[in-house]
Amino acid sequence: MTDQGQVVQSLQSDTQETIRTDLRAWILSIGNELLTGRTPNGNFTWLAHRISEAGGRVVGGSVVPDDEDAIVHALGEASRFANLVVLTGGLGGTPDDRTRPALSRFTGRGLRFDEGAWQIVRRYARQLGLSEAEESLRVQALLPEGAEPLENPIGSAPGIWLKTPEAVFVALPGVPAEMRAIFQESVLPRLQREWRLMRVLQWTFRTAGFVEAHVQKCIPEEVVAEVPDSVEVGFYPNDILVDVVVRAPEHQADSGRALAGEIRKYLGHRVYAEEAGVALAAVVGEALRMRGYTLALAESCTGGYLAHCITAIPGSSDYFVGGVVAYHTEIKERWLDVPQRVIHREGVVSEAVARAMAENVARQFGADCALATTGIAGPSGGSTTTPVGTVCIAVVTPGQTQSTRVWLGTDRLEVIRRATIIALEWLRRQLEGLPDADLIQAWMNLPGEQKR
Amino acid sequence: MTDQGQVVQSLQSDTQETIRTDLRAWILSIGNELLTGRTPNGNFTWLAHRISEAGGRVVGGSVVPDDEDAIVHALGEASRFANLVVLTGGLGGTPDDRTRPALSRFTGRGLRFDEGAWQIVRRYARQLGLSEAEESLRVQALLPEGAEPLENPIGSAPGIWLKTPEAVFVALPGVPAEMRAIFQESVLPRLQREWRLMRVLQWTFRTAGFVEAHVQKCIPEEVVAEVPDSVEVGFYPNDILVDVVVRAPEHQADSGRALAGEIRKYLGHRVYAEEAGVALAAVVGEALRMRGYTLALAESCTGGYLAHCITAIPGSSDYFVGGVVAYHTEIKERWLDVPQRVIHREGVVSEAVARAMAENVARQFGADCALATTGIAGPSGGSTTTPVGTVCIAVVTPGQTQSTRVWLGTDRLEVIRRATIIALEWLRRQLEGLPDADLIQAWMNLPGEQKR
Repeated sequence: MTDQGQVVQSLQSDTQETIRTDLRAWILSIGNELLTGRTPNGNFTWLAHRISEAGGRVVGGSVVPDDEDAIVHALGEASRFANLVVLTGGLGGTPDDRTRPALSRFTGRGLRFDEGAWQIVRRYARQLGLSEAEESLRVQALLPEGAEPLENPIGSAPGIWLKTPEAVFVALPGVPAEMRAIFQESVLPRLQREWRLMRVLQWTFRTAGFVEAHVQKCIPEEVVAEVPDSVEVGFYPNDILVDVVVRAPEHQADSGRALAGEIRKYLGHRVYAEEAGVALAAVVGEALRMRGYTLALAESCTGGYLAHCITAIPGSSDYFVGGVVAYHTEIKERWLDVPQRVIHREGVVSEAVARAMAENVARQFGADCALATTGIAGPSGGSTTTPVGTVCIAVVTPGQTQSTRVWLGTDRLEVIRRATIIALEWLRRQLEGLPDADLIQAWMNLPGEQKR
Repeated sequence: MTDQGQVVQSLQSDTQETIRTDLRAWILSIGNELLTGRTPNGNFTWLAHRISEAGGRVVGGSVVPDDEDAIVHALGEASRFANLVVLTGGLGGTPDDRTRPALSRFTGRGLRFDEGAWQIVRRYARQLGLSEAEESLRVQALLPEGAEPLENPIGSAPGIWLKTPEAVFVALPGVPAEMRAIFQESVLPRLQREWRLMRVLQWTFRTAGFVEAHVQKCIPEEVVAEVPDSVEVGFYPNDILVDVVVRAPEHQADSGRALAGEIRKYLGHRVYAEEAGVALAAVVGEALRMRGYTLALAESCTGGYLAHCITAIPGSSDYFVGGVVAYHTEIKERWLDVPQRVIHREGVVSEAVARAMAENVARQFGADCALATTGIAGPSGGSTTTPVGTVCIAVVTPGQTQSTRVWLGTDRLEVIRRATIIALEWLRRQLEGLPDADLIQAWMNLPGEQKR
């Protein structure tokens, strides 16, 4: 692994200005279900991300079955290249859980009953009303000599922190929620102490409603070209939700901040949040709450997904009144008072119908704002003039109704999801008084006219 | 890796009756983007699944950076344990693509320009109007001596098949679509020839509404204990959606079929589908369609998620009329005609309110069937008598209304998801005239009373 020297130096030459860290991590994933392809190895990706973000370097990873010899061999390989080995899986109390004995055998440290670990296991057992005498529980309190138990706030098996002269070994459960909780609460702070990790600064800009290529084009190439190599810009798309992330090591904070400022300027009103993990629906919710506005929905082609995104946010009952999923045309007519003649004249997938749906649900539900969708999610139901993927969206804010007709692709779930994102982003812009022409124009092409 | 002997034997002792295959695969994933956690290693999971399905055994996997030394070392490790090594990534034409030179160095077979490979590259270049003189293209036609190029129907880089006395090495691009296409079209047929793979039969039983431990308890231990070792039963939970899968090599087809029959009998009415990938909402949709019934929804705590699950299924407009997301109490009263006195007397989270919601939405929307939910998804809004996680569900089928009060945990999205699954499964059972006591009783405990 010749390239380690490029970004990793040993602590011997430590100067706060030039080095990052000598944390070289190996992630060892244990479980037959991974090797049959039954379960995706999300733990690897999550851990690799967290360790990299913290300024460490993941030098490799391996996947092995629930087999003690295989784990012991993999530990040997891992500790040749890494000074931190993070194991996931095999920590439960059943006979096929081999992580504890393998770690003990590899490090030559016998397993002993640990009182601290037992407290963690016992508290969990009591919560669930399990008998403390169960062998499968007591086994989870066995740790290799010299190891520390790590608090598991969610499940029974404590994590393990074992520091040896060669490497630090961290064993975590394979259940993702438990693994994540233990890593965040107990492992990360220890890693920061152990390796005096230099902070990597990070600026995140979340955008909604555009594909990655479109977001990239907002930022002139020369803006990125001029910064030092250690400052990075990344684009992380989840279809039409794209995060732009700037990263800089602490000693390049000024360059990082300057670049982030430039990028923020070019992205402008397209940025709906400057923090990773903030949901668009939560930002829209805050915008409503701040103004004391309420929201109602009238959904046809999005079929309840818009309502689900809104109500997935805790506290949404403060501003969300309710919605109608008007799937059949008759429901649009009888429940949302969309005039039959409008439907006949304009078609059920039309801006006129979307506007009527939005305005009427707002009035009937007594809401200040409303969103409506009507379209053809597919795979069937399309026509030459209204092909699959055509969606009309309407947004009502106090005193104003806007509508548009867009084409969002041919995959049913993609159409549903894109229509939802565009509707939410449009409402956000309306509420915050931001321009919206770019958002609508990006989706005005019909199939065949679409550019990449 | 001591456990290989249990299911894998060498071809020396080959008899059609007793052996499965001696294909032992190792998947070697190459790419810095995997080690920073930026990209999930979906290729690993996909390949592991395909190879297992074909009757091979994945004995391990590793992830290494775009670094020649690291790849060479990993090849050494892989071929210690495996006789098939599948590499993904590092096959492009840029200088950081190191798979070709690493494979050449490890096997001691020099890289030579291959005419067959060049035809594949050139055809792609022409399609895209690229100049054939580009160095980055010519480099993709270099193969280790004795290797075969594999057709790439999507991208430029041909795959590589290299058989040595020690192992077969297969190198594929990291782009998932290219990797998959080459594997399906060119690699799988070669593996079947090379290892005379025996088909593995598989029976899948999908259940909804129960946690894994509960589903396991339906099947007496002795039923599984009596079958040959090569017949396997697996439980694959996604919270309260649990698949039970029986697998048997072709020569154990009878034992597999017998066991599957037993398990099917014990699972009984809990099985909603006998095919992998079939959605519960699609099965409910078919049950409605067959009977010519229509469905309406009245959702409070599930907030549109039930409607989304229904409308995610293509063709759902045949039976789904529409729904009301009655988030605010006022909407329940004014739009769903839930009498104010019932809400005052019983509380808004009550079976009486759920029944009124379901019956009224069915009547008003002119639907034969209806589902309604009202509950506290949390995190706030709970009380001693109605803690967070309490949900009342009502099911209307022609001439009948059923309701229940259940407790579904404390995580907001989990409560929403569980309530949706239980409501759909309950409707399925009502439509098909199946018992439902087990489904309801599994969720009647309040927090603290919960047993695993």
